[in-house]
Amino acid sequence: MITLSLIGIGTGNLDHLTGQAIREINRADIVLIPQKGAGKADLADLRHAICAEVLTNPNTKIIGFDLPKRDADTPSYYQGVDDWHDAIAAAWHQAIAQNLGASGRVALLVWGDPSLYDSSLRISKRLIPAPKVEVVAGLTSLQLLTAAHAIALNDIGAPVVITTGRQLRDHGWPKGVDTVVVMLDGACAFQTLETKGIDIWWGAYLGMQNQLLIAGPLEEKGPTILETRAKARQNHGWVMDIYLMRKSPKVKS
Amino acid sequence: MITLSLIGIGTGNLDHLTGQAIREINRADIVLIPQKGAGKADLADLRHAICAEVLTNPNTKIIGFDLPKRDADTPSYYQGVDDWHDAIAAAWHQAIAQNLGASGRVALLVWGDPSLYDSSLRISKRLIPAPKVEVVAGLTSLQLLTAAHAIALNDIGAPVVITTGRQLRDHGWPKGVDTVVVMLDGACAFQTLETKGIDIWWGAYLGMQNQLLIAGPLEEKGPTILETRAKARQNHGWVMDIYLMRKSPKVKS
Repeated sequence: MITLSLIGIGTGNLDHLTGQAIREINRADIVLIPQKGAGKADLADLRHAICAEVLTNPNTKIIGFDLPKRDADTPSYYQGVDDWHDAIAAAWHQAIAQNLGASGRVALLVWGDPSLYDSSLRISKRLIPAPKVEVVAGLTSLQLLTAAHAIALNDIGAPVVITTGRQLRDHGWPKGVDTVVVMLDGACAFQTLETKGIDIWWGAYLGMQNQLLIAGPLEEKGPTILETRAKARQNHGWVMDIYLMRKSPKVKS
Repeated sequence: MITLSLIGIGTGNLDHLTGQAIREINRADIVLIPQKGAGKADLADLRHAICAEVLTNPNTKIIGFDLPKRDADTPSYYQGVDDWHDAIAAAWHQAIAQNLGASGRVALLVWGDPSLYDSSLRISKRLIPAPKVEVVAGLTSLQLLTAAHAIALNDIGAPVVITTGRQLRDHGWPKGVDTVVVMLDGACAFQTLETKGIDIWWGAYLGMQNQLLIAGPLEEKGPTILETRAKARQNHGWVMDIYLMRKSPKVKS
């Protein structure tokens, strides 16, 4: 039987790894590392750097595999994601079959935490025969954002919504909360909001050497974030960012 | 000047610590450990165990201090919390003044992550003169819950609400979401919901040796959780738990 260990690695800093993550990487027979397809060579390099740093088990093999690309032309977003997950599951299956066979431990290093806007758990359910799936929690970009700004996620006893740029754009500010965290937002959906009375805390490349942080009233900082983000994306070839917004007491809904 | 480092330590397992957390503990001149008051001697012991395991700097001193108790009789909940935070800030101030003076590095080991339903950041703002505050992210019980159950926090591209037992009891199921995470719930507020079509994933003592997990339809598992939680609390003297609930597709609002 195959045991598939989904290991959260934080967001690109070796110091984010927990003791458990390091131990689990070293228990693996093979570590699968996606090589390309996402246009993010830095991220493959980071996974290799983690293995180079923490892997002490001489029997653990590092296996690169080609990550399929999502077909952005599929009319339905959900159908496109569904097809893409099938293709990734097939790539995992092939890499496991070729390098390990029918039994052993496979590790996948998951950016952030496998529970939060990550598809590894869903993809693992498509493997036949079904592997035993284990999850090792890792720091999320959300935690690194609040840590970098030294802010709390929630007001005292108050709820928080975690959502996506698409949701914010399509449905506006979520009902019943003053704090909203937005992830997976390639188009800066905060531009679609009435800015008055909203503060924003934004971060990109969190925990990495080129970390960027901007905070302040959305009205004032929104344009700065747009500009900074566009430049950073141009310079690095990719950008991963996240932001938290909070309504100030006077405009609470 | 005082630098106050709020270090997330996860939920009671040494393996939850990140490399950064271990490094920051070792940079401290003093580590403040609350000794009592919360009725949770296990938690003080855990912090001492962490220091015993990871502290290699011979110059770092471990300083116990008495944590004030919250006055549960204060008529306003928020006023009670406010007074309590003042009292904790005074206790920190005294411990720092007596053991370090006006300059140096102070570490506090924060259960979970300092950003999520934790008051250390707010309390630190009450210190005069204001210290430089640094935050080191730690694993939250939420992440350890989803990892232990091997489930995702969110449906694909869908929002999630993180809230408290009090909010759930007073305001019901949050609008516009199918996934709700409930923390700080001493009274099992899930009992106030219409159970039909809701699944629950519950966990207590997450990551610790006595970890408890229950999952299934709320209608069926709710009573089991109530009973298990009450027994566990009696046996251990305390319980820390958290749960995630998801509406199944048929009853999505």
